[in-house]
Amino acid sequence: MKNPPALEHLVESLRCLPGVGPKSALRMAYHLLQRDRAGAASLASALQTALNQIGHCSLCNNFSEEPVCPLCSKGNRDPSLLCVVEMPTDLLMLEQTHTYHGMYFVLMGRLSPLDGVGPREIHLDRLLKRAQDGIVEEIILATNYTVEGEATAHYVSELLKARGLKVSRIARGLPMGGEIEHVDSGTLAQAMMERRAIK
Amino acid sequence: MKNPPALEHLVESLRCLPGVGPKSALRMAYHLLQRDRAGAASLASALQTALNQIGHCSLCNNFSEEPVCPLCSKGNRDPSLLCVVEMPTDLLMLEQTHTYHGMYFVLMGRLSPLDGVGPREIHLDRLLKRAQDGIVEEIILATNYTVEGEATAHYVSELLKARGLKVSRIARGLPMGGEIEHVDSGTLAQAMMERRAIK
Repeated sequence: MKNPPALEHLVESLRCLPGVGPKSALRMAYHLLQRDRAGAASLASALQTALNQIGHCSLCNNFSEEPVCPLCSKGNRDPSLLCVVEMPTDLLMLEQTHTYHGMYFVLMGRLSPLDGVGPREIHLDRLLKRAQDGIVEEIILATNYTVEGEATAHYVSELLKARGLKVSRIARGLPMGGEIEHVDSGTLAQAMMERRAIK
Repeated sequence: MKNPPALEHLVESLRCLPGVGPKSALRMAYHLLQRDRAGAASLASALQTALNQIGHCSLCNNFSEEPVCPLCSKGNRDPSLLCVVEMPTDLLMLEQTHTYHGMYFVLMGRLSPLDGVGPREIHLDRLLKRAQDGIVEEIILATNYTVEGEATAHYVSELLKARGLKVSRIARGLPMGGEIEHVDSGTLAQAMMERRAIK
């Protein structure tokens, strides 16, 4: 005696979501089929739409529905500054401070060898190419002040300095172990303004 | 500055999953788009398939791909016994004890007025009709021994006894406050065998 195959398959598929184990997946499947079929249909179509429409901006590597994202194609940003962040959320947080008007590069992760995330997974080849376009004058590393964020900043700065580029790091205004996503705008703005050159 | 619309829509849609708030939804969306596009595609199609194929068995009310589920259409079950459970998982747990060979009725929930779950939401009209088919001789209430499960059992037993039906309750072998889903098979089997008539 088992659940119907289509239900078992749904439970199995829900486990691709991060942090969802067998019990949660079963609870989710029951909930969707029993109480929220409209939500399930909408989720199915949202997934399909997102998969079809969302790629990466060829300049900043952020999620984008166009080959070049709206921020990169805006004419009013300072092209001599390139700010490197781990995740799209970090970019949105920095934009909310209204203190930075340069360009971005989104790594979509951080170096984490134990999880199989190396230089290639965070697109460092594309970052190097982007940083050497002849227009960028300073690369600001705005990775988190966590162990992995720090290691990533160190690794990236070595690569960039070896190519004669000016590299800086946002100030340690945020608390140690803290993450950009959770800090208040004021602290974040100060950290951006007090960035220091990496010698 | 916002995320692309298709991404925002996906985040919004993921929130129909129980226990998923705005931050988790964003993390899930990033994970799917960045690291598991195959998983996302498979989830979209599993949702669609489940919605198309899974309805409820017209006899036991369990999830089923056919009008009458495999268990109800099997000829080798005792049609004089009807066991009432809250959720499909409870049915599967009881089947695993191999001590019960009658039929089932799955409420798909429990009475919980504060959550808007009343007699109609747990399909008591269908249960009453099912119990009065002239073949069922005893209805065994196997709802959880939680406050809500007990209240449901009490309510259902009053309804059934008023119609002259014999009603029993699985023995309180499981610990108070415990849920059928989490108990071991041995305890559950004993509770099933020691069921007592509701006077």
